[in-house]
Formats: sequence, C-alpha cells, structure tokens
Amino acid sequence: MFPASSLLDPQASVQRDRLAALRSAYESVRRLTEQLCQPLATEDFGVQAMPDVSPPKWHLAHTTWFFETFLLARSADYSLYHPRYPYLFNSYYEGIGPFFPRRQRGMLSRPTVSEIYDYRRHVDGHMLALMDNLDDESVRQIGALVTLGINHEQQHQELLLMDVKYNFAKNPLLPAYREDLPVSCNSAQPLEFIEHNGGIYSIGYDGAGFAYDNETPRHRVYLEPYRIASRPVTNGEFIEFIRGGGYNHAEYWLSDGWREVKENHWRHPLYWQKDESGWQVMTLGGLRRLDDNEPVCHVSFYEADAFARWRGKRMPTEAEWETAAQSHAVAGNFLDSGVYHPVAEHRHFAFFGNVWEWTRSAYSPYPGYRPPTGAIGEYNGKFMSNQMVLRGGSCVTPANHLRASYRNFFYPAQRWQFSGFRLAENVE
Amino acid sequence: MFPASSLLDPQASVQRDRLAALRSAYESVRRLTEQLCQPLATEDFGVQAMPDVSPPKWHLAHTTWFFETFLLARSADYSLYHPRYPYLFNSYYEGIGPFFPRRQRGMLSRPTVSEIYDYRRHVDGHMLALMDNLDDESVRQIGALVTLGINHEQQHQELLLMDVKYNFAKNPLLPAYREDLPVSCNSAQPLEFIEHNGGIYSIGYDGAGFAYDNETPRHRVYLEPYRIASRPVTNGEFIEFIRGGGYNHAEYWLSDGWREVKENHWRHPLYWQKDESGWQVMTLGGLRRLDDNEPVCHVSFYEADAFARWRGKRMPTEAEWETAAQSHAVAGNFLDSGVYHPVAEHRHFAFFGNVWEWTRSAYSPYPGYRPPTGAIGEYNGKFMSNQMVLRGGSCVTPANHLRASYRNFFYPAQRWQFSGFRLAENVE
Amino acid sequence: MFPASSLLDPQASVQRDRLAALRSAYESVRRLTEQLCQPLATEDFGVQAMPDVSPPKWHLAHTTWFFETFLLARSADYSLYHPRYPYLFNSYYEGIGPFFPRRQRGMLSRPTVSEIYDYRRHVDGHMLALMDNLDDESVRQIGALVTLGINHEQQHQELLLMDVKYNFAKNPLLPAYREDLPVSCNSAQPLEFIEHNGGIYSIGYDGAGFAYDNETPRHRVYLEPYRIASRPVTNGEFIEFIRGGGYNHAEYWLSDGWREVKENHWRHPLYWQKDESGWQVMTLGGLRRLDDNEPVCHVSFYEADAFARWRGKRMPTEAEWETAAQSHAVAGNFLDSGVYHPVAEHRHFAFFGNVWEWTRSAYSPYPGYRPPTGAIGEYNGKFMSNQMVLRGGSCVTPANHLRASYRNFFYPAQRWQFSGFRLAENVE
Amino acid sequence: MFPASSLLDPQASVQRDRLAALRSAYESVRRLTEQLCQPLATEDFGVQAMPDVSPPKWHLAHTTWFFETFLLARSADYSLYHPRYPYLFNSYYEGIGPFFPRRQRGMLSRPTVSEIYDYRRHVDGHMLALMDNLDDESVRQIGALVTLGINHEQQHQELLLMDVKYNFAKNPLLPAYREDLPVSCNSAQPLEFIEHNGGIYSIGYDGAGFAYDNETPRHRVYLEPYRIASRPVTNGEFIEFIRGGGYNHAEYWLSDGWREVKENHWRHPLYWQKDESGWQVMTLGGLRRLDDNEPVCHVSFYEADAFARWRGKRMPTEAEWETAAQSHAVAGNFLDSGVYHPVAEHRHFAFFGNVWEWTRSAYSPYPGYRPPTGAIGEYNGKFMSNQMVLRGGSCVTPANHLRASYRNFFYPAQRWQFSGFRLAENVE
Repeated sequence: MFPASSLLDPQASVQRDRLAALRSAYESVRRLTEQLCQPLATEDFGVQAMPDVSPPKWHLAHTTWFFETFLLARSADYSLYHPRYPYLFNSYYEGIGPFFPRRQRGMLSRPTVSEIYDYRRHVDGHMLALMDNLDDESVRQIGALVTLGINHEQQHQELLLMDVKYNFAKNPLLPAYREDLPVSCNSAQPLEFIEHNGGIYSIGYDGAGFAYDNETPRHRVYLEPYRIASRPVTNGEFIEFIRGGGYNHAEYWLSDGWREVKENHWRHPLYWQKDESGWQVMTLGGLRRLDDNEPVCHVSFYEADAFARWRGKRMPTEAEWETAAQSHAVAGNFLDSGVYHPVAEHRHFAFFGNVWEWTRSAYSPYPGYRPPTGAIGEYNGKFMSNQMVLRGGSCVTPANHLRASYRNFFYPAQRWQFSGFRLAENVE
Repeated sequence: MFPASSLLDPQASVQRDRLAALRSAYESVRRLTEQLCQPLATEDFGVQAMPDVSPPKWHLAHTTWFFETFLLARSADYSLYHPRYPYLFNSYYEGIGPFFPRRQRGMLSRPTVSEIYDYRRHVDGHMLALMDNLDDESVRQIGALVTLGINHEQQHQELLLMDVKYNFAKNPLLPAYREDLPVSCNSAQPLEFIEHNGGIYSIGYDGAGFAYDNETPRHRVYLEPYRIASRPVTNGEFIEFIRGGGYNHAEYWLSDGWREVKENHWRHPLYWQKDESGWQVMTLGGLRRLDDNEPVCHVSFYEADAFARWRGKRMPTEAEWETAAQSHAVAGNFLDSGVYHPVAEHRHFAFFGNVWEWTRSAYSPYPGYRPPTGAIGEYNGKFMSNQMVLRGGSCVTPANHLRASYRNFFYPAQRWQFSGFRLAENVE
Repeated sequence: MFPASSLLDPQASVQRDRLAALRSAYESVRRLTEQLCQPLATEDFGVQAMPDVSPPKWHLAHTTWFFETFLLARSADYSLYHPRYPYLFNSYYEGIGPFFPRRQRGMLSRPTVSEIYDYRRHVDGHMLALMDNLDDESVRQIGALVTLGINHEQQHQELLLMDVKYNFAKNPLLPAYREDLPVSCNSAQPLEFIEHNGGIYSIGYDGAGFAYDNETPRHRVYLEPYRIASRPVTNGEFIEFIRGGGYNHAEYWLSDGWREVKENHWRHPLYWQKDESGWQVMTLGGLRRLDDNEPVCHVSFYEADAFARWRGKRMPTEAEWETAAQSHAVAGNFLDSGVYHPVAEHRHFAFFGNVWEWTRSAYSPYPGYRPPTGAIGEYNGKFMSNQMVLRGGSCVTPANHLRASYRNFFYPAQRWQFSGFRLAENVE
Repeated sequence: MFPASSLLDPQASVQRDRLAALRSAYESVRRLTEQLCQPLATEDFGVQAMPDVSPPKWHLAHTTWFFETFLLARSADYSLYHPRYPYLFNSYYEGIGPFFPRRQRGMLSRPTVSEIYDYRRHVDGHMLALMDNLDDESVRQIGALVTLGINHEQQHQELLLMDVKYNFAKNPLLPAYREDLPVSCNSAQPLEFIEHNGGIYSIGYDGAGFAYDNETPRHRVYLEPYRIASRPVTNGEFIEFIRGGGYNHAEYWLSDGWREVKENHWRHPLYWQKDESGWQVMTLGGLRRLDDNEPVCHVSFYEADAFARWRGKRMPTEAEWETAAQSHAVAGNFLDSGVYHPVAEHRHFAFFGNVWEWTRSAYSPYPGYRPPTGAIGEYNGKFMSNQMVLRGGSCVTPANHLRASYRNFFYPAQRWQFSGFRLAENVE
C-alpha cells in the first residue's frame, strides 16, 4: 500500500514541490467534501436509513478523525480535540481502540453539524502546520499517510453521495439532493464484444503514484482467450430481462441470490418504481423517468449474474477486466462532471466512470500481498472474504481517485453503491 | 370518552365563556409544546434512538395532524396542508388510512423543523378561526374534540421529554437537555402503610370535566382490606434490593421478567451507571450523582414486582390505588414545577406527580366501557391487552392533565417512561 | 395451593383410606399417560415442531422427574436414577437448578423412548414403596405433593395431545393420531343469553378437595349485571365472521392482535384449510370436513376478542364465567369421552369440556394469593403477567382434573391449545 | 461434470463390463449407507440439531429420491412411490418443483424409518431392473446419471456422519455413535515446507473416470513460486494459538471472522471442551482426551486464516494445493479405514484423507465452466458465491470418491464438516 517511496524522492527541491502539491491536494479535497454537503439541510446530516449507510456528518467527522489519528496524534505535542471523538468517529480500526456501534450512528444528534465543522477547522489548521514544518526525516512517511488520508476522504465523498441518495429515497417525500442537475439524452452505443487472446498478462499496480495496498503487487496471471463487452449493460437491456421473467425464474440465479430475491421481494433494481406511464427512477436530482440508454445501476452482484446467465454470457473476471481496460484512458462520467448519475456514453469503448462494474471475482489477496503493519493495515486487508470486486469507478467517484488497477469491493447482495456490470464470454 | 355534554352547556353566555377558555387552553398548550423544544438543537429534532421513541419533530407534527384530521379536515372547505403529511404523521389510526412505519420515523430529515413549524402555524390559524366561528349546532362536538386534541398534545409533551431523555442518554457525550435545572436535596419521608377497610368502593370518572374514555364508566368494585404505602419506593431502598442480589435471584421475578433480566442484562434501573465513587444517573439536566432520597424511576413493572416480592409486599391494584388517592389533592412535582426529575416530597402522603406508579392491574376495559365510534375510538381501547396500568402522573406530566382516575398504560418491560411504584400489603 | 389439610385428616383409618385412594389415583394416572402414547410410532416421541411444544417423550420423562424431584429426592436414601436427567427434564424450576433450553428439546434422541419407560418404571416402584411406608408425620405433606404430582401429570396428558396434534399438522403427510376416533353429527343448540344480577359474588376455591394455589383464596367480587351465552361460539358462526371480512378490518382487533394477523397471515383458526369443496380441519383423527355445529377451536384470544367486537358483544370476565358456571355440574366432552375433538353438545347450557374458553381477564393473583414456599411455588405464580385466563376444560382434559374455579392461562396469541370462547354482554 | 463419454464406450462387451461394474457400485454404495446407519437408535434418525444438519433418515430418503427422480421418473411407465415424497425429499432443485423447508426437516416423524427403508427397497428394485434392461441408445446417459447418483450418495454418507456427530454433541449425554472405534497414538510428523517453482500449471479434471462438473475444464493457471506445508496443522499447534491469545486479538482476524468470534463466543474449535485436566473433544466414539498429534479439525475458514496470520503464513490457493497434491497417491485415512476421526499420519507428505483442507480460494467457476442443462445443472453451479474451496477429503469421505481435483465448498463460518487446513508461504 501507499508506496511512499514513489511519492517523495530524496532531492530537496523536488520534495518541496511535492509537499506543495500535497498541501494543495489536501486543501482541495477537504474543500470538495464540504461543497458536496452544501445542498443539505441541517436535518439531512444526521440520517442513517439503514445500517450500511452513515449520516453525512459522520463522514465529515470520520475523515477528519483519520487525519487526527494517523498523523496529528502521533505527535506527543498534540492533544485530542475532544476525548470522546475517537470513540465516536473511529469506523472499524480495532487496533486504535473501541468504537461506537456502526448501526447506531444515526442516533447521535450531538456533536452538531456546526461543532463538526469546528472540528474540521481545527484539524485542518494542525494538518497544514504539520505539512509546513516537515523535516527531512519524517517527510516520507508523513507524505504517504497524508496521501492515504486524501484518498480515504475521496472514498467518503462517494459514500456520502451514495448515502444521501439512499436516505432521500427512503423518505416518502422523495426530496432531490439538487434540483438543478443536468439530464443526459444520449443514445446508447451499439454493443460489441472485444476479443483478447489467451496468455500470460500482468495486473496490479506498480506505478509511481498512489495506489492502495490491495492493488499490489503487480503479478502475472494466465488468461484463456475471452471476449468482453464494449460497454456496460443498459436499462433498456435490463428491462428485457425483467419482461422475460428474470426475477421469477430460479434457474437464472445463484442459490444465495435467489434467497435474496424471495426474502427481499426484489423485482427490479434499487430505486426503480413503476406507475401507469412506465418506469421511474429515484436519482440525486429527484424522481425521473427512466432512460433506457443509461447503464443500469444499483444492481446487486446476483442480479448482474442472473442477467448474464439469462443472456447466455457471463461477467468478466477482474483480471480480464483490467487487462482489457489497461489500454484505455481513465476518462468518463466521474464526480467531476457534475451529473451525479450514469449517462449513455458517446465513446464506443467505455471502461471508466458511470457505474462500478461487478466482476465475477471474489475479493482476495493478490499473490504476495502484504498489508502494512499497525492499525493502518486494517484499511483493506481484513475485508478479503465474502465480497466481490468491482472495477472502473462511477459517476460519483472523483476522477483522480481512479486507476485501471483500482479494486472496489462490496457484498454480493448490496445495491446502494452505483453498481452496474458488463458482459463477457469465452472464445470457443 | 370526552363528555362534551359536561363541557359545554346550552346557555349561550356560558357557552361563550367556555369557548374563550377552550381557545385560551388551545393556545397555551400549543405554545408550551414549542417552549419545551426550545433547548433543542436542530439536529436533536430528528433522532429516534429506539422504536418506541419518536423524534421531537414528529411529535410537533403529529399533534398538529391530530387537529387537522379530526377537526379541520371534516370541513369540505379545508384542503390539506400537504398531501403526504397524513401518511407521515398519522400514528396508528387504521380508520384514517395507512401510515409510515413507526420504527422508521428517525429516517426522515424532511420535512425540516422549520417546515413543521410552518405547518403548526397554518393549522393554528385555521383552528382559531374555527373556534371563532362556531355555530350552536356544531359547538358541542367541536368543543369535545378540541379538548381531546389539547389533552392529546399534553400527552405528547410528556412523551417528547421522555424521548429526548432517551435519545440523549444513548449518546456517549451525555448532553443535557437543560443545564440549568434545579436540583432537590430533600430527605425522603418515613415510609408508612395506610390501612383501608374492605368493602364496596367506586372508581372511574363521572365528573364534569374532561376524562378519557378508558376512565369510564364509574363503577363499583369490592376490595378486601389492604394497606398502601404513604409514598413511592426510593432510590436508597432500591439500592438495598440490588445489594441484596435482587437481579441475581430468579425467585423474586415473574418468569417473563426474568427472561428480560437475562436477555437485556438488567442490573439496575434504566439511566443508572456506576463508577468508583458510586451510582450516577442520567437526567434531563445531564449526568448527576444519584440521590437516595428520590423516588426510584425508570423501572419496569418486572423490577417493581421483583422488589415488592423481595420485600414481602406487593403492588396495589389500580382500584386500591384510586380509592386511596381519591381523598388527596392532585398536587405534586409535575411538569409545571420545572424540575423535570423526581424529588423527595416534603409531604407525608404523596400520590401525585414525580413518578408514574405501576399497579398490579392489567390494562382492561372497565365494566360497561364503550369506546366512541369512528377512528377516534382507536385512541385508547385497542391497547387493552398485554399492558399494565400506571397511576398518578410524573414530573413531566402537565399538572392540569392529571386526575385520580387517570389510567396510563405501558408494557411491563418498558422503562423509558418516568415510572416508579409504591408498595401495598394485605390485612390479615 | 394443594390444601393438604383438607386432603388428609387426622384419624388414622380415614387416613389409610385416603392413602389407598391416592395410590390408586397415582397408578391410574401414570397408566393413562402411557396409554395415550400407545398410538405413537417411536419416531413421533421426539418431535418438537415449535418452541411451545415438547416432544411426547419429554412429557413422559418430565412428569416422572417431578415425582422424583419433589418426593423421592427429598429422602437422603434415594440416589438419582441418572445424574443428567434433572438437567434434561426440569422444565422451568429455577429453584431446583439449571435446565436444558426449552426450544431444543426436539434435538435429543437420547435417552430413547425405551430408556424413558425404564425411568418411569423405576420411579413408579419407588413412589409406590414411599406411599406404602408413610409414617404419621410425613403423611400430610407427602399426600399433598403426590396429589399435586398427579394433577401435574394430568396437565401434561392434555399437553401431550395438544403437542402431538401440532406436530402432525406440520407434517405434509397429515398423519392421524388415531384413525378410529368417533365423529359427532349433533346439531348446535340455539344460542341464548342468561342474565345475572349485579352484586357481590364469591369466586375461587375453598372446598375439601385439591385445587391449585392460583384458585385461592376464595374471595368476594362485585359484578355489574350481565348476560352470558348458553354455549360457546360455533364454527358456523365463526365462518360468518370470516365471510364478513373479519380478518381484513383492523377496526375489530386489538392493536397487538392486528399485528399478529398481519405478521402471521392469519386468515382462519389454526388447523383450518380450504379446498374447492370448502373448509377442512386437521384433527387428532386426521383431516376432516369442518362441522359448522362444533364449537370453534384453536383460536387466539385476539380472534375471540375480534369476533366479539364484530358481533357487538364481549367475552365474559373470569368472575362472570365462574359465577355463571358454579351452578352447573362439571360434565361434558372431556378426555374420558374418547372423542378428542369438540362436539356440538345436546345440553342447552354447556360450561364444561369441549373447548377452553378465553375470558377477558388477564391472569393475575387473587386478593390474598400466596404461592407456597420453595421451588414448588414456581408452579403457577411466576406466570402471572401477559397471559389471559381460560375456563372450563376441553375435550382433552381429564374430567376429574377440572373444577368451576380452575384457571388455565395462555398468552393471547397462542392457538395450539383447544381454545374457543363464549360471548357475554352488559345489561343496560 | 459426469463425462458419460469416458464412462461408457461404444463397444458392446466393454459396455457390458461397465454396466456390471456400475450395478455392483450401485449395490455396494447403497448397502454402505445402510451399514453406516446401523449403530443408530430409531430415535436418532429424526434429529436435526441445527438448520445445516439433516436427520439421518432424510439422507436415506433423499439419496433414494435422487435416483427415483433423475432416472426412474423419466420413464412414462414408472409411477411415483408416494405422491408427497418428492416434496419432502427434494433438497434444493428448483427445476424439479417445490420442496419442504430445509430447517424443518427435524419436524417430520413420518414417514418412519422403516417406511423409508421400504422406499429404498422399492427404488433399488426398479434401479436394478433399469440397469438390467438398458438398450444401446439410453446406456450412455443412464450410465452417467447412475454414476452421478452413486457419487451423490457418497457425499451424503459423509454428511450423515457429520450430522450424527453434530446431533450427538448437542445432547448433554454425549452419546457415542460407536463405542468401539479404534484410537490412534501416532506422533505427528515434523512440519516441512515444500517449494514449488513459479510458472504455468494445469489444474482441473480431464481423466477418464467420473468427476463433478465444477472440476472442469482442466485449464492453465499461472502460479508464483510458493512453499506448501507437508502436513496439516495439528491440535498441539492450534493450542499454541489459543494460548497465545488467538481468539482475543482482532488483528489476526478477517473482519467477518472477528464478528463470528464475538457473536458466537468462539474460544476453540467446535467439539472441544476443557476441564481441569485439559482439553477434551467430542468424537464419533464419544468424548475423548484431545490428542495433540492429530490434525486440528472442525475449524472455520476464519479460524484457519487467523492461525495462519498469527504464524506469519497463509493458506494455499486451491491451484497451489492441487499442483502440489497431483504427484501424490490418493491414499490416507478415509472412511474406509473405519477410524472416523483424524489421526497423525506416519507418512511424511500427507495430502489426502483425515481433514478437508480450507484453501484461500473462493469457490468460483473455472474458466470455460458450463453446468449441464436441466435441473441437474443445479447440483454444483448455483453455489458459486460466498463459499470457500476445501481439498483433500476427510476421515469420513469414501476413498474412491476423492480425486486431487475434487473441490468441496463450505461457507467460511461453517465448522461441522471435518475441516482443517495446511499452511503455505511465498518465496521471496
């Protein structure tokens, strides 16, 4: 994880430039988080409409706690902003200490939103001072940790929008996060399958920038020849599956998925609803008519897998996906576009942005994987069971947060992330 | 219920006076609810820390919905303030229509607090206009319903403080609802048992004022001779029970109560905690040292019953309690005292205020009981199973809301209401 | 409880006669339990199809454990038949020691049925020897305890048939407990309401025979004038309720009952099913066409209460029921008739047998009630919360087990007991 | 799956020999199942002590249903033995029809054990007649299906012993399945790590015999160099982990695993218990002193993974395991040895028998995997999510059922299978 080595090099001037870049990255990421909160009413900051979701203000505080804990608190001079905040805002780091139960985060009206903004101000002040006063010795480790904290906060920017969307969709008033979001009217590109030869490929990260530990080490894999779709499955295609009885026939489903269908009465992707005039979908811009051209979004792994089986295809493995995506630029409909919803791409080959794409790969350690020591090692490694890998980033992922080697992961039944999928098939 | 007959009499001038009194009662109760909310931060209005609790803003809206639904909406001229508010703010009236699931009330950030205050303004305006324009025909029924709505809102004033206390006690920061609450340092009165002869007594309401339907009809009961305590059990007495192993011995407990003890790890009343210096208790004024002289509060029926068995006593039936209390004035530490916490009374005989007192009586219909027709009949009657009767009012009950015949009811395992108990015994 | 005083009097010859009677009662009750098990296959003895049910062989062992624990084990000479049996076959007596979790009783294939019969033989031998060798001192207490054990085993005879019925009804093969049970074709008697004056009445037991502690002391109650039905509600009458939408309208139901209806999808009494030709009902004789004339059976308190509300009536209190029943002989369709199913009675006034009748009374202690000391005090007293009283005995209750003062009790949602109800109304 | 092609070749005489072999395999497998049931009391056949377990008699019937459904019922001439048996004994084949809820299998006392044996007799008769009368056309498909049914029954032989062990261990009497099982006193072999070069290897089945569909197709994988242990981890080694606080430190555990530890209070492998003299373990031979030399057994994936992390190692992937095992003969302590418990092997390199070995590989489809069409395709494929692969077979697996390519799979929290694990490490 976090190859600090590559981030900061020994020469002082370069180092100074990098520190300046880091400081600027820190400030702009911290600012963006707060900008994303601007459309919210004070009341919206405290809601947790299901256990997986965290209240917006918790994200504001937790990301701040991360910098305080892993950077400021390591200095003997620093005293904690509030003695109970570590208990309240530690997410899951057992190595740091006990933490407030996740599913009860929505019960906490205090600290108030404004108290949390004060906390942010306080930590930002100390963080900037820290970065201004780095000696040569500490610069490498500090730089790596600050970079990690920045990327961590970017992940929470995405979570924050996911969570706001979920909270608002549970409210019978269906409030819009922003009324003024642009709406796309592109047509979907024709679907094509790109063929790849079998052979030995390399996947994983070994570049000079930041990457998470779980993307390393870069290593070889053997792939059989395969074909992979040029774009993700669309709403229109998914409606055919529904019309074809997709949610009624056990034969398309994994056993665990079929149990979810029955227990949770799944009949369509999350956020869809139907009235006499057809399908509608809840978005961050409020309730809209469903656009057939957009990539289908907010489906579980099980729904993706069932669709693929119904179509006589399969999903790609993460190695197949990464191999196919490596030659494409990391560009697309990311958070930065300000659309906050998947759109039909005008590009023929689209691997990044719009929707996270489920792969058929379980989230496991790469050969030779080693988490860092200490509590920070809990960041990724301890989740390597029962989850599936998703690739490519979504319309609420910051663009500069993403890489071809980026591994996101969710439980196969989860749907509140912006998740879609693309098809693949064997070459026979 | 709601003997409108007694409220409003046929002579016009008296009627006008009564209407003026009603109008004034309406205004002062509505005002008090909002005053009780003044110490809250905006964030506090939305929290629901357990399913039995409702967010403060829900109470603000629900009490308003009650007037809108049972009074304003009966007029063809009136159009609903918001088409979805009936769905959101109906509590449990099946006869009115579907309602939002109770346990999800804490998920609703919208309408905002300020939108709910607008709703109150709107309904208040229409209600006052309604009362100003009553003709002779409608005056009786309207008067009875307004009175019911006023009493209903008083109940929610108590619920609001119960719920705020619960929400705050779940927050590790233990915020105070008000920092400036007075603290009592009275000593507890010596405990005495008052003897009552056996014979036929009458209980229930048949006076000229307002009473709930469940207090009627007044009817005869036969009581064996009994003795009843002069005051409720105190914290100091309850601590003896704890020290004596009260929570460790099944023999003191009802079977259902013992299951609660084990499943919920009950070791003391709700809101108590212990540190090296002794017992502390969470109050609306924040965490305080426990005062041995105060009546014990926030105990379940099971704890009260176990204490009584441990002491070789029992709790009174509701008929015994009412018979003993009838000769005492309805005075004591109510909401109006501004203490918001039970105190040791200086009076020797104390039946009212401080803590609701569990009786050993299950909540059942009185002989001859008839709920009113229509949805309003759901107010009390449909809860007449599985709950126990409590009597006397508490330190968060408005004084003018209480009567000797008043029947409150909770499930025997509930503890977040301000509930204590007094002892009784047979004469042998 | 167990007024030994009345059972055994000081004169030796009378005492000898009573001991002989006791011995004979012991033997015949123990024999009957085993006769009731004769139609079962070995496999049937171990099933527990829901937590409230116990496997038949558990009943065989538990009733034996009762005699071993409360009689044999009190003698220093006696050594336990098996060191783990007290753990396995203690039902709920905390004062005796820990016990195996109730809901797991169906997991125990060992001891085998035949080993349990050996246990019965062993305890029977010691019990008979004990009764043969009583000295004057111990005779009173022993006699009372043996009588209690006999009555306890009679209760388990009823439970055993209830449980077998439930287990068999859960089996898709719908096996009959006995294929050869007689089927009644009586017509239901016309329904009449018997009027009783208001006034002071006495209820509870003070006779010379055995009664449970919860039936004592006999005490006075004041009753308003009332009318009580001459017979229980029939299947035919209950079908009208179903046809009239009884299970679809919240207005007929207590709030807790309506939740049960929705959560458990209640649409009819337990054991009913419908095919194109009409209603059928699972009985101990297998699946049969439903007879409209029979008393309705296997309804919860909530269903009884909803029916009564729908009909504009109510259920009697237990005091009303007992007052009305006191003048009638304890006769009717009991276990001894060998029908094992409710039948339409030819008698005009029928208070006993056929079905246990729900009353509107919560199960509470009588004024002056005192449970016996020691573990035996857990027999009845600790269940006095959350349950409702049923009266009159059923078609699977041994006739000599029943009295007018007999108080049975179940939770209001339970339905696997043979429970029906009769109507009552106020006199206005 | 089921490469019928390889099983039966076109030449008639060879075919006849193969059919004779098949017939004989059928008979001996069916006989063995019943022999395994011989030590059981009738009562033992019906117990289901947790939802994952099935009652022994259900295994007897389900394996019979498999032959009836997939072979006999395909003939128009055959009429079902009992119209409700398909509902009762279908395990999970949605394509066949509805089935009785898995978790309720222990509620069915009927059909009795003897009725199920009659069912077996009936189906065996028809199966043998079927095999005697195969024409050339049907022989291929029939042969493949019979072979599948035989292997299916072998899997249930293992399940039956797993389930009996679990049921007996839940019984406080701790009955032995067989009192006369041999006990080993071997010493564990010294632990060694075998190094394998990196490169392309092939895994999966392409031999001439039977294999399940999930082992196919044989395909290439790229492996980094690795070292794999010469034998599984022993009880003695696992005790060191316990003593070292393994169950107390979150840092060793996957996040989902740590939740299991806390919720289920895991402190040691399933079936272990401790008294003053040390560790004991429940076995099919009853309770025994724990032998440090035996492979540790009945651990979850999470416990295996935590142990490995504690030791600074990891578990092998399934490809690493298969590559290492391919060169070893399939020999070891299987069901056939009659020990029914893991033993310390005298062989230095032990890959087969004793305990199923958890790998770090999630159970996923091999590249190019295709399940067969129809309901039989539900056999393996639909379970390819959330489970982990185990390899090597156990002391209750029939020896001729196992292959190096055999993929068993369980959820990572399950422990009632005979599961252990071996360590591996990277070469750096």
